[in-house]
Amino acid sequence: MRPKPLSDSERSEQLSRLNGWNFSDNSINREFKFRNFSEAFAFMTRSAMEAEKLNHHPDWKNTYNRVAVSLSTHDAGGVTELDIKLATEMNKIAGNGI
Amino acid sequence: MRPKPLSDSERSEQLSRLNGWNFSDNSINREFKFRNFSEAFAFMTRSAMEAEKLNHHPDWKNTYNRVAVSLSTHDAGGVTELDIKLATEMNKIAGNGI
Repeated sequence: MRPKPLSDSERSEQLSRLNGWNFSDNSINREFKFRNFSEAFAFMTRSAMEAEKLNHHPDWKNTYNRVAVSLSTHDAGGVTELDIKLATEMNKIAGNGI
Repeated sequence: MRPKPLSDSERSEQLSRLNGWNFSDNSINREFKFRNFSEAFAFMTRSAMEAEKLNHHPDWKNTYNRVAVSLSTHDAGGVTELDIKLATEMNKIAGNGI
């Protein structure tokens, strides 16, 4: 069963604990920056494995050392716990990625 | 030394031999489609290794089973042999990816 969209207040509370992510266009978004392409792609690889485990996948764009990520639960029509979970894992993987 | 931008006729000739790629916005572009996220990301991983070998990196966006790629040689101000090389390698990697 897919989770339901978070309410505005639930989402705001979760986002307040999630460094670097912002809500816009019915999704949560963050840009990660690394030292070079190799580090950016290593981040993407580890994130891809988490995404497969959660069966929940990011929309993301990579240009050299930057990875712009957008998370939303399309079949729930908004941001759910699944997006918060994947965002939390991506922050852990990025570590000090600015 | 970085290569120079291809002339319009050189580029057109190269593109005619490069399945699925189109020229727009001073870059060459293709969308690859796979069976699922895992296959799309496997394609990205192998392409990332080729990009590192060429020291020439794609702008690309992934949404589940789709990978949209844009190639341009920014410091040459246009499409060069490097973009044709990377596009050729990506087509080989994708194999029957539609």
